Amino acid sequence: MTQDGVDELRLRLREFAAERDWEQFHTPKNLAMALAGEVGELLEIFQWLTPEQAAEVMDSGRADDVRDELADVTIYLVRLADILGVDLLEVAHTKLDRNHHRFPPGDVRSRADVPPVSR
Amino acid sequence: MTQDGVDELRLRLREFAAERDWEQFHTPKNLAMALAGEVGELLEIFQWLTPEQAAEVMDSGRADDVRDELADVTIYLVRLADILGVDLLEVAHTKLDRNHHRFPPGDVRSRADVPPVSR
Amino acid sequence: MTQDGVDELRLRLREFAAERDWEQFHTPKNLAMALAGEVGELLEIFQWLTPEQAAEVMDSGRADDVRDELADVTIYLVRLADILGVDLLEVAHTKLDRNHHRFPPGDVRSRADVPPVSR
Amino acid sequence: MTQDGVDELRLRLREFAAERDWEQFHTPKNLAMALAGEVGELLEIFQWLTPEQAAEVMDSGRADDVRDELADVTIYLVRLADILGVDLLEVAHTKLDRNHHRFPPGDVRSRADVPPVSR
Repeated sequence: MTQDGVDELRLRLREFAAERDWEQFHTPKNLAMALAGEVGELLEIFQWLTPEQAAEVMDSGRADDVRDELADVTIYLVRLADILGVDLLEVAHTKLDRNHHRFPPGDVRSRADVPPVSR
Repeated sequence: MTQDGVDELRLRLREFAAERDWEQFHTPKNLAMALAGEVGELLEIFQWLTPEQAAEVMDSGRADDVRDELADVTIYLVRLADILGVDLLEVAHTKLDRNHHRFPPGDVRSRADVPPVSR
Repeated sequence: MTQDGVDELRLRLREFAAERDWEQFHTPKNLAMALAGEVGELLEIFQWLTPEQAAEVMDSGRADDVRDELADVTIYLVRLADILGVDLLEVAHTKLDRNHHRFPPGDVRSRADVPPVSR
Repeated sequence: MTQDGVDELRLRLREFAAERDWEQFHTPKNLAMALAGEVGELLEIFQWLTPEQAAEVMDSGRADDVRDELADVTIYLVRLADILGVDLLEVAHTKLDRNHHRFPPGDVRSRADVPPVSR
């Protein structure tokens, strides 16, 4: 039987923090800041790239940096959600259910002035 | 057989974008910016709260806002990773394997000057 | 005699906070989060625009939004610097002095792999 | 006669970019991302600090890092505003004029549920 991957990561992060006595630092404010800090590092990889260069970043010398920053963002997002008791996949699907009705495909086709995918 | 939850969300986001012809907007630069924008909205929920208020945010009137922003962050993170061909759970575990050795529990116990969980 | 503009804004922000008894919220952590939140709103304006649309944003219907977000970013940056006792113009010039030597014009001409302007 | 400090920095940044042929990278989207990236680095300094530690950060070993990140944020903000043709001090004062009326001191005294200083 397969345990869901997000849940497995969530439990590993709990253990990781516990065995280092780092739970005291993992408050919602601190984790939200840490999440934003890692997203900032992700932006730095892309900031000076042309759209064409950005599209090929995984074939460039920055591929490992991209993987590294996406790992950090994932880690802090999953840890923050665990602290807050939020199921990330569940809230994402709930949001998409709502957006499916807010943005009917026929109404928003190809339009950038309505928020693609989400909000 | 259970399909992994992240993978299921990833495929739903592909379909969501495709049926609205929004793939043209979903470049790595644009999605990284969108991810950062949603994290910014998450920060705004917490910015004026005391640590105590932040710890109880899910029992406050802002609980739905927190769920909503976490949903948006998750959606853009999963969509960005799909565009880049990165498996978020895999890179997170790889990072944790490395950090487990960089930060041995006995060396970093209770210390805030080493980056908790990640980095 | 002209008082420097940043200093004038700094003093106005002090007064603004004092007459509302908001100094208690203006801690470095909170203001750094607020600054990041406003930068996130700025990103949201640009995130789906093509480079061409972004270059003409001040001739579009989003011009007032851009001014509004730049105002918020400026306000929180000046307020944070005041709380920390940092002179923003002085530290910016010090950084540029250093970068002038780190990135001699002849060595970095047209190169995106060295960080333009700063860092 | 004193030239305004922001204006002086703005002109220095123009020259700095021109003599390195970096103007091509300084698009609004790229500069907004760079601004967000630097704010992310600022957040990283504060993320694990207690409110008490954060209040004393300028007396700690991180003081130079704070000055450095505030310098970078200032540089990108002033450069972005120059590219967009926005006067940062003017828009900040316009916003404060508006907020002065939206948040009359007597109505919002000590309240965190109205946005301090701005927004």
